[in-house]
Amino acid sequence: MSFDKLISRIVETQNPTVAGLDPKLEYIPSYIVQKNFEEYGCNLRGASRAILEYNEALIDALCDIVPAVKPQCAYYEAFGYHGMKALYKTIEYAKSKGMYVITDGKRNDIGSTMEAYAIAHLGTTQVGDDRIEAFGGDALTVNGYLGTDGIAPLIDICKERDKGVFVLCKTSNKSSGELQDRLIDGKPVYRIMGEMCEKWGESAMGELGYSAVGAVVGATYPEQLAELRAAMPHTFFLVPGYGAQGGGAKDVIGAFDAKGLGAIVNSSRGILCAWQKEGCDEHDFAQAARREALRMKQDITQHLTGGIHL
Amino acid sequence: MSFDKLISRIVETQNPTVAGLDPKLEYIPSYIVQKNFEEYGCNLRGASRAILEYNEALIDALCDIVPAVKPQCAYYEAFGYHGMKALYKTIEYAKSKGMYVITDGKRNDIGSTMEAYAIAHLGTTQVGDDRIEAFGGDALTVNGYLGTDGIAPLIDICKERDKGVFVLCKTSNKSSGELQDRLIDGKPVYRIMGEMCEKWGESAMGELGYSAVGAVVGATYPEQLAELRAAMPHTFFLVPGYGAQGGGAKDVIGAFDAKGLGAIVNSSRGILCAWQKEGCDEHDFAQAARREALRMKQDITQHLTGGIHL
Repeated sequence: MSFDKLISRIVETQNPTVAGLDPKLEYIPSYIVQKNFEEYGCNLRGASRAILEYNEALIDALCDIVPAVKPQCAYYEAFGYHGMKALYKTIEYAKSKGMYVITDGKRNDIGSTMEAYAIAHLGTTQVGDDRIEAFGGDALTVNGYLGTDGIAPLIDICKERDKGVFVLCKTSNKSSGELQDRLIDGKPVYRIMGEMCEKWGESAMGELGYSAVGAVVGATYPEQLAELRAAMPHTFFLVPGYGAQGGGAKDVIGAFDAKGLGAIVNSSRGILCAWQKEGCDEHDFAQAARREALRMKQDITQHLTGGIHL
Repeated sequence: MSFDKLISRIVETQNPTVAGLDPKLEYIPSYIVQKNFEEYGCNLRGASRAILEYNEALIDALCDIVPAVKPQCAYYEAFGYHGMKALYKTIEYAKSKGMYVITDGKRNDIGSTMEAYAIAHLGTTQVGDDRIEAFGGDALTVNGYLGTDGIAPLIDICKERDKGVFVLCKTSNKSSGELQDRLIDGKPVYRIMGEMCEKWGESAMGELGYSAVGAVVGATYPEQLAELRAAMPHTFFLVPGYGAQGGGAKDVIGAFDAKGLGAIVNSSRGILCAWQKEGCDEHDFAQAARREALRMKQDITQHLTGGIHL
């Protein structure tokens, strides 16, 4: 009922990073795209099969060195229900390789509907006498704009099935401050949301100091990251914005606690497009992703001078 | 590039309501569920086929009297990619019957990712030389917590393809005030979000007085509904919370302008479960939904004493 499983994987791999699987067709080597178009058609189905083949090769190349993957739902939804099948199969494959899966959906709704999202992404759906995993992720990103009603159904499932959620606090994008930095009783909205995360997490504490309710805090705002780390001692952070969005290794250091824990840093395009950036043979894309993942690990952990330990 | 199409349908049907298609298996007559389990298996596929058959019958019974449907993504995602296929087919069928489709996904993300959501739900996905609709809705509900970056890609597609978005302002659930009622410079967060909606809509004004950027404002908060109507003269409202959630006809009247326009009121469970509430034969479920939709239309329009007109 917490992030203990994720934390254990981070300690095991000594790597507090997650590979974002945000596949666009233009990131995928053309031989994979062409092969799948020929086999399944130049349509949403063929494209989705290409995405799955690409993801599986990346997972093979990363699973022993990176603790987690973060598929971003939007990039699968863009290929319709075929894309959602590729999302399901990607999650299934990553889990079969021992990876922790954070489904990045930023879902949010009123309680009754949020229960359906919680079931969809972290729980099981009742069909006849069976309960079936619809997507089967380990954690889900969510948006807390609707307050406690929209978070409570998730916490129930987190407790029941050892899952986690990450609530958006301070996002990595340029305009995040338009609402998130505005002051309520002298505190920015992201702090208010952070306080709500700490409160929501109280009933779902893990053994390793963090609750099942994490937060999304962008690498592009290093000061706020450090401020929130201090203000939210029981909240595990998912940190986007490293790499392509402009965040550097020094920017994310404030997200970690004294044990080198408390945060996982995401890179999507940096890893996915490493082969294009390197200019290597497209058949070498998965190894290029591995090289970039190792570079990123080294880049970040060099600043965690006390190491990563329980 | 606006809600003109929706407004025209509302005037045509003289009905400012939308039927929420939030299918749970327990809402569906057992003969439909059993038939599909027998044909496709007692699994996510069979369940999704039952949902689609149920939705199509409801659409047939409602399409000449209700201007729009609002499928709620969560209830489809709960059935995995098979559920997402049912969502796609439901949208396709509703459009073939002339209905306006509001996809209720409350999506949100940074700009680059929001572009993928915009493509998925309102746009077309490039595959080879073709552009294909992934889900094909007419409008999408979204969450503005990330600010302008997360809304701009939607507006581009709204302009290009005559689509709309509804941004969450004041949601219908009990805990919506935890963040949304807090004051920023003396104004509640929902007002700040409302001001952002008015601003976002400026570049996408329709011919009929409303922009392509609408807002979600709950029927359960009638005072705020009237306050926001006055403060947001160019923003079309999607009003959830009528019926099962406790909002009555008098509560929603403040959402309308002097022409009886400016808002569309949603009912999901009230319509979907009408046959259970009536206690009628389960084979009569679609006609029970129609009776409830007509009752709701009458219930609301009796208070629009000036009628609904352009």
